[in-house]
Amino acid sequence: MSLSGISLHALPGLPMVQAGDDLAGLIGDAIARAGLGVQPGDVLVVAQKIVSKAEGRVVALADVTPTPEAEALAARVGKDARLVQVILDESVRVVRSRPNLLIMEHRLGFVMANAGVDQSNVAPHDGAARALLLPADPDASAAALRTALSARFGVAPGVIVNDSFGRAWRRGTAGIAIGVAGLPALRDLRGQPDLFGRILEVSVVGFADEIAAAASLLQGQADEGQPVVLVRGLRWGEAAGRAADLVRPAAEDLFR
Amino acid sequence: MSLSGISLHALPGLPMVQAGDDLAGLIGDAIARAGLGVQPGDVLVVAQKIVSKAEGRVVALADVTPTPEAEALAARVGKDARLVQVILDESVRVVRSRPNLLIMEHRLGFVMANAGVDQSNVAPHDGAARALLLPADPDASAAALRTALSARFGVAPGVIVNDSFGRAWRRGTAGIAIGVAGLPALRDLRGQPDLFGRILEVSVVGFADEIAAAASLLQGQADEGQPVVLVRGLRWGEAAGRAADLVRPAAEDLFR
Repeated sequence: MSLSGISLHALPGLPMVQAGDDLAGLIGDAIARAGLGVQPGDVLVVAQKIVSKAEGRVVALADVTPTPEAEALAARVGKDARLVQVILDESVRVVRSRPNLLIMEHRLGFVMANAGVDQSNVAPHDGAARALLLPADPDASAAALRTALSARFGVAPGVIVNDSFGRAWRRGTAGIAIGVAGLPALRDLRGQPDLFGRILEVSVVGFADEIAAAASLLQGQADEGQPVVLVRGLRWGEAAGRAADLVRPAAEDLFR
Repeated sequence: MSLSGISLHALPGLPMVQAGDDLAGLIGDAIARAGLGVQPGDVLVVAQKIVSKAEGRVVALADVTPTPEAEALAARVGKDARLVQVILDESVRVVRSRPNLLIMEHRLGFVMANAGVDQSNVAPHDGAARALLLPADPDASAAALRTALSARFGVAPGVIVNDSFGRAWRRGTAGIAIGVAGLPALRDLRGQPDLFGRILEVSVVGFADEIAAAASLLQGQADEGQPVVLVRGLRWGEAAGRAADLVRPAAEDLFR
């Protein structure tokens, strides 16, 4: 009996990623080691942290001089003023703040804690505190990985750069797509009839976000460390999109 | 080489579900037909719609007499006042409203469009409009399925009842867990060190929501109709939870 299925494979043996590393080469080696190859419809989900590390998106807090605005906000929320300066530099505005919490609108439109600036899983450099930023252009990062892997394997995989976001109304983080290449970010089922021929009213699906969440199940956080997941068995008919498709414009957003 | 992986299987051949159907029996038959069996760690993700249908959670709008409150709200948002009455009856409050949109706090705490009341994929009854409600107690629905499947297969699967929710800040829906039995809803990685021994600050993962989103990739909407997905290969160490664990209490929610 033919079964409709999807499989997710954590790529084994990826080394710790350093600034300047050839990330596509490391991922390609892991795909080859696992004997998985690349098949049409495959999607590689790559954790934001290793993309940012490979791209050298690290700031040493000792090099940061906070503005008075950053000092004031840092005092209100109880964070390091230099870290708050880095967060402000990555953002277009503060969405909500309270002690120990800064929900920002990142310059790419993502509403997220600390504008994605992260101090965990960043190796200290000579004992100095460092912070990791989102990639400068995660869609471009995804597209570059797709191009390099296509050249190596002869088939172009879809690529998602994902991150874990907190959510309004729900506890716990969920994987989210911040970079997309070679697959639709949204699947628009509007206008398709339901099982009884009635036109579906609201059925735009956050396709890349659901894939990002699925991969997050395998990626772990802490010491598990499986930052790249190959997803096999997805099907779609729509044109490829980008992560910006998933960002609700402020004008149609009731919660910003 | 041992690969860490997860597989998702859409159960084939499920019939259209009717009020009073033995849903656990139908799902068990489909598992047996597919030759999948139930293994320790398996999680069955069951679409809310078929749970609600089996439980007869259908309201004929012709039987509903709207209150003045429902009439007024219906006029503001441009919906059928009887449908708005059904939505109000399922809710504790209106979170946001605007023409053609009602974001409600469901009596179970879920913040969602129309309090989950759905007119799509409900068979007309003598031409009369009908609406489908969420299950009365989705955690209990999940637990009952788990118990029945455990009796049949000798192994108790985790069970998630999922639905597709719109989200703040993001376009497109994502699968969400509204009922959970036999697995943790949240995985709490706080207090575990990251790769460099630093304590992770925020790492409570919406585990059941990520599984719900993964399954949603296979479930489709419209005519694909694959409402039950078996997820194999997940691991967890935490105690089982319930869907309420995923609901952020209003007191700690900045967006309600």
